[in-house]
Amino acid sequence: MMTKADVTDMIRAAKREKGVNWAEIAAAADLSEVFCTSACLGMNSLLPDTAGKVVDFLDLPAEAAVVLAEYPTKIFSQKVPTDPCIYRWYEITGVFGEAFKELVQEKFGDGIMSAIDFDMDIERIAHEKGDRVQVIMSGKFLPYKSW
Amino acid sequence: MMTKADVTDMIRAAKREKGVNWAEIAAAADLSEVFCTSACLGMNSLLPDTAGKVVDFLDLPAEAAVVLAEYPTKIFSQKVPTDPCIYRWYEITGVFGEAFKELVQEKFGDGIMSAIDFDMDIERIAHEKGDRVQVIMSGKFLPYKSW
Amino acid sequence: MMTKADVTDMIRAAKREKGVNWAEIAAAADLSEVFCTSACLGMNSLLPDTAGKVVDFLDLPAEAAVVLAEYPTKIFSQKVPTDPCIYRWYEITGVFGEAFKELVQEKFGDGIMSAIDFDMDIERIAHEKGDRVQVIMSGKFLPYKSW
Amino acid sequence: MMTKADVTDMIRAAKREKGVNWAEIAAAADLSEVFCTSACLGMNSLLPDTAGKVVDFLDLPAEAAVVLAEYPTKIFSQKVPTDPCIYRWYEITGVFGEAFKELVQEKFGDGIMSAIDFDMDIERIAHEKGDRVQVIMSGKFLPYKSW
Amino acid sequence: MMTKADVTDMIRAAKREKGVNWAEIAAAADLSEVFCTSACLGMNSLLPDTAGKVVDFLDLPAEAAVVLAEYPTKIFSQKVPTDPCIYRWYEITGVFGEAFKELVQEKFGDGIMSAIDFDMDIERIAHEKGDRVQVIMSGKFLPYKSW
Amino acid sequence: MMTKADVTDMIRAAKREKGVNWAEIAAAADLSEVFCTSACLGMNSLLPDTAGKVVDFLDLPAEAAVVLAEYPTKIFSQKVPTDPCIYRWYEITGVFGEAFKELVQEKFGDGIMSAIDFDMDIERIAHEKGDRVQVIMSGKFLPYKSW
Amino acid sequence: MMTKADVTDMIRAAKREKGVNWAEIAAAADLSEVFCTSACLGMNSLLPDTAGKVVDFLDLPAEAAVVLAEYPTKIFSQKVPTDPCIYRWYEITGVFGEAFKELVQEKFGDGIMSAIDFDMDIERIAHEKGDRVQVIMSGKFLPYKSW
Amino acid sequence: MMTKADVTDMIRAAKREKGVNWAEIAAAADLSEVFCTSACLGMNSLLPDTAGKVVDFLDLPAEAAVVLAEYPTKIFSQKVPTDPCIYRWYEITGVFGEAFKELVQEKFGDGIMSAIDFDMDIERIAHEKGDRVQVIMSGKFLPYKSW
Amino acid sequence: MMTKADVTDMIRAAKREKGVNWAEIAAAADLSEVFCTSACLGMNSLLPDTAGKVVDFLDLPAEAAVVLAEYPTKIFSQKVPTDPCIYRWYEITGVFGEAFKELVQEKFGDGIMSAIDFDMDIERIAHEKGDRVQVIMSGKFLPYKSW
Amino acid sequence: MMTKADVTDMIRAAKREKGVNWAEIAAAADLSEVFCTSACLGMNSLLPDTAGKVVDFLDLPAEAAVVLAEYPTKIFSQKVPTDPCIYRWYEITGVFGEAFKELVQEKFGDGIMSAIDFDMDIERIAHEKGDRVQVIMSGKFLPYKSW
Repeated sequence: MMTKADVTDMIRAAKREKGVNWAEIAAAADLSEVFCTSACLGMNSLLPDTAGKVVDFLDLPAEAAVVLAEYPTKIFSQKVPTDPCIYRWYEITGVFGEAFKELVQEKFGDGIMSAIDFDMDIERIAHEKGDRVQVIMSGKFLPYKSW
Repeated sequence: MMTKADVTDMIRAAKREKGVNWAEIAAAADLSEVFCTSACLGMNSLLPDTAGKVVDFLDLPAEAAVVLAEYPTKIFSQKVPTDPCIYRWYEITGVFGEAFKELVQEKFGDGIMSAIDFDMDIERIAHEKGDRVQVIMSGKFLPYKSW
Repeated sequence: MMTKADVTDMIRAAKREKGVNWAEIAAAADLSEVFCTSACLGMNSLLPDTAGKVVDFLDLPAEAAVVLAEYPTKIFSQKVPTDPCIYRWYEITGVFGEAFKELVQEKFGDGIMSAIDFDMDIERIAHEKGDRVQVIMSGKFLPYKSW
Repeated sequence: MMTKADVTDMIRAAKREKGVNWAEIAAAADLSEVFCTSACLGMNSLLPDTAGKVVDFLDLPAEAAVVLAEYPTKIFSQKVPTDPCIYRWYEITGVFGEAFKELVQEKFGDGIMSAIDFDMDIERIAHEKGDRVQVIMSGKFLPYKSW
Repeated sequence: MMTKADVTDMIRAAKREKGVNWAEIAAAADLSEVFCTSACLGMNSLLPDTAGKVVDFLDLPAEAAVVLAEYPTKIFSQKVPTDPCIYRWYEITGVFGEAFKELVQEKFGDGIMSAIDFDMDIERIAHEKGDRVQVIMSGKFLPYKSW
Repeated sequence: MMTKADVTDMIRAAKREKGVNWAEIAAAADLSEVFCTSACLGMNSLLPDTAGKVVDFLDLPAEAAVVLAEYPTKIFSQKVPTDPCIYRWYEITGVFGEAFKELVQEKFGDGIMSAIDFDMDIERIAHEKGDRVQVIMSGKFLPYKSW
Repeated sequence: MMTKADVTDMIRAAKREKGVNWAEIAAAADLSEVFCTSACLGMNSLLPDTAGKVVDFLDLPAEAAVVLAEYPTKIFSQKVPTDPCIYRWYEITGVFGEAFKELVQEKFGDGIMSAIDFDMDIERIAHEKGDRVQVIMSGKFLPYKSW
Repeated sequence: MMTKADVTDMIRAAKREKGVNWAEIAAAADLSEVFCTSACLGMNSLLPDTAGKVVDFLDLPAEAAVVLAEYPTKIFSQKVPTDPCIYRWYEITGVFGEAFKELVQEKFGDGIMSAIDFDMDIERIAHEKGDRVQVIMSGKFLPYKSW
Repeated sequence: MMTKADVTDMIRAAKREKGVNWAEIAAAADLSEVFCTSACLGMNSLLPDTAGKVVDFLDLPAEAAVVLAEYPTKIFSQKVPTDPCIYRWYEITGVFGEAFKELVQEKFGDGIMSAIDFDMDIERIAHEKGDRVQVIMSGKFLPYKSW
Repeated sequence: MMTKADVTDMIRAAKREKGVNWAEIAAAADLSEVFCTSACLGMNSLLPDTAGKVVDFLDLPAEAAVVLAEYPTKIFSQKVPTDPCIYRWYEITGVFGEAFKELVQEKFGDGIMSAIDFDMDIERIAHEKGDRVQVIMSGKFLPYKSW
């Protein structure tokens, strides 16, 4: 039975062979780069039509589209990440996490930023002292209810 | 000896008593809300002048400015956060962490987004289906060097 | 500075001294038993008016109402619980957690049951072979969005 | 030797192939959805007759019924769950666990809600602001004995 | 507010001062040694009358009886025990735990030995090659139910 | 090279195929049920003659008797057990472990109950309110020596 | 109530003040250095007479002898030790632990070296290339029994 | 590529088949039993000549001698050992570890016992109350240097 | 799909077969020993040309050069290392880590030593009392910025 | 009883009050900056004369010199460090640890770099693209011995 991990491997192999990148796959599927990449890595589901576009673009078997459309069980490591590129983001959440909570709740009241009704964008910003990575995240505010 | 934790307690007490918020403290110190809040929580150091402005605005003792200007040892919990407001951000880094690395390195080459030459902004964005939290992060790209 | 933990201690002491129970406190505050108890234990915030009713009913100092209305940082242990009454619930989530996900997503599509727009009720149900504990939980379904 | 994990894989494959869902399997076995799903996932045993109904409905080999009727060793992860659908339930037990104990023991005396003499139901409840997941759990109260 | 830990300390101090042992305290309370000791250590509650007998026998303040009658939150360490006397028991449960499950379920069917409707006795048994510790545990069998 | 785990699998397969139970295997080997089961699960070694009786009774290959007679490396999980049948025993050791130490050392002096010179028996005891599991453990007392 | 930790502190203070060392304390108590030191550190109990000799030699209060004669709960850290002097011993048990088991059981049969009927000695051995630490441990062999 | 683990398996198989023991292997290699056993288990390297003697004695392929002479990466579990024979040694290091440090540094000054310039011997000592395991360890003392 | 782990295995096999060492591989690639070794172990990427030199020198397949040039996900164990050669470095970072921070920030101000713009060299230094390992590390200082 | 932690606090307070830095304290004691700082932080012992110089320079009480000369128990956290300045060094040991072992043992044979006969130096090196932190470590090579 083909799994999401199998499909991720197929996508990586097709990427290397065809010399395409995530931006091109996302464009073929009419999706943002971040969401499309996360779905190809098995962390989100695609609508059947969108899954078909990814599979067509990369010449994968049809069953791969079925698998991309299934609802994933999201599993990620809870250990401190070791890869420096991911660790730096982890460090930022450690250093600024409490400030984030203070400011969100100061601006909105008691509640949270949704991680479900959520989107994110990553861009390269040219800068004279060295180009910068820009990440924009946006999530719906959800207030606590009492009853 | 007055510690950073002592000063954070003083700031919280003054905030409650005076009815000021983080945005007003940051404005008094000519700083962004995120950086100022993180420094008041003990996770960053302020320049002596800036520290003085915070202390004056909140009527804290002069020694508090000395402490705010000291270089902190940044200590944060590595356990999974339990507060829902902070957990949701943690969940986002778990779900999208690998996609972040894929896209940063696709756009820039082998390297990382700096967590030191870094800034962040949090805003409330009005939206008809419910207002949204927007977070913008920007860090300098640092390429690996060989030797 | 009076903390949520201080107020919880005051409430427990007043309960013991006055011989009142959680049901009576909740009734005085026009709240459900579960929500009111969780707020008294420091895991939720009360609206200022409601906080005042709790404080009046238990003859606590006025500052306690201010504290009950503050937004808590929810901290709970992530270790396996040892108290048998709480452990059994934990065991149930372990045994039935995957079935819960299968059935929620079969009935609703890819998404989650909200833990924010959520309520819960606990009742004693008479039964000839021994009375039963009944727990009813209700949370809004939140679908994942793509972008 | 066919294991419970093997049978779960067979059931998932048959579900996908035949396009049946958990509700239909449970109906074929005259069981509730929650109990039947948990047994198919290897967390409970079925009576031999009931196991036979599941196996017949899904056209599995006869040995699968023997395995479904065996007594399982219930193994589940004690780490914080990462899938958001399961995590939210985990968060609820963390936030309301102590309140649960307070109210059960206020209503019944010193003791616990059984996790063995126990049942659970999950329903979709229509709601104008968005449909809701409703979970009803019921367990026999067991008092502590002294001796 | 007097806690269970406070009362345990009072009991230990009174034991040392009066030179009484657990067997005598249990006899004064008309309880088994194991249950009485566990309650004095804060792991079980006593009925109010029984608590009064313990308090009278040891000349403790009346409030101690109230505390002994309260329902405890049972907290014990989940780390491997280091004291050799307790470790050996832990080792036994590790070496024979699976055999215990095999034999209980072979004799009774799918289910468990209750830890709530449960009693235990510890005796010194004279033996020519060295006296032996004998532990007898008895718990009600609870069968799983399907629904 | 045939391992203890291989032999345990062979024993389980032979048990299922022949329809014999642990009690019958133990009787064939002239051993108690608990010790024989633990040795078949790889946690104890059998004398060569006894191992031969188990192997003959279950029609296993001769090499299996050699393996059953080897000295095992006893490996068991130190995590909190999740199976409810084993967890309840674990809970009992947590709730009563300190009381066990208090009473053993009150009756014998400073020392321990041996886990090596040790035996255990598990029986079904008929009871009008529901049959009970009875566990009897006996271990030699070993006093600490000074030097 | 004076604890073993209190007495260890008293002994360390008296050692520093009087300028005596562990060898002299052990000689005063007619004990080996290792056992006497471990008892003073709270990891073993002394007979009342021996405890009295330690207390007399160091001019401690009489109650300290009562405490030294009590049966300790032996608590030690299960984390990897960080002090280099203790870590090296830990490393030796890691590197040679399996070889130890192989050779003990080759020489004696299935069983263990007792840690209760046990003694140890530490000596300085002069050596031309640098003096050496010599540790001699001796424990009774305990064979497993079947039943 | 043949690994150290492969060679350990070959040695165990040859031991069982030829009926030789560790003492005989060590004698063939002109090594102490402890060092030779530890090298055969992959925790130390042998000189090429010595490795050849082991390989010849056990009729292993020539490549095995190359592997026995390679420098190992020493990997051992940092969890509490579960096998009783190894656990007892672990317990001894926990109970007497601090006393060991006190006495080594009292006899030598600030420094450690080397685990590199180190040897160990294990012997069976006849004793009327039961034979004893004797372990003698010897390591060079290494003083700390300042600079 | 050939992975970095596969290529590391190929390099180790070629090293053993050809009898070359890391210094020779580094020389063939015009790289420092430390960087070249770390890249061969999968912890850094090589430029395509440099990767080709390594592959040519060791007669590996051409695809190995593609893999050596890919950007690695750096994964390393966060447990305490057990191999003594690596542990000693770990111990040094534990003993001197805080002093390192004190002195770097005393010399440079608030900030860090970069681990990205970084190089390291390892040399054997002859010494009459025994040769010494010398490690020289150099990293760019990165100051914190406020905003 | 004054502890090493007490003395570290005294030194930090005197540093702040007198406006001296670690370099000046080290110069007063005729020690390297790294060793002197580590001893002031409680991780190494000073000779009595040297300890006296530190205490004189900072006007601390005489007992502080006694404490600085005592042999410390070196305790450091084994968790992943969170402060970025220390984390970057930790990351380096993770990324380059295996390469370090490969190269040390290629240059010296089977053995380790001593962490006891060891020294370290930290310098600021001017550089046109930004000044650099240089760390030089030197430790005696210790070969494994067989026996």
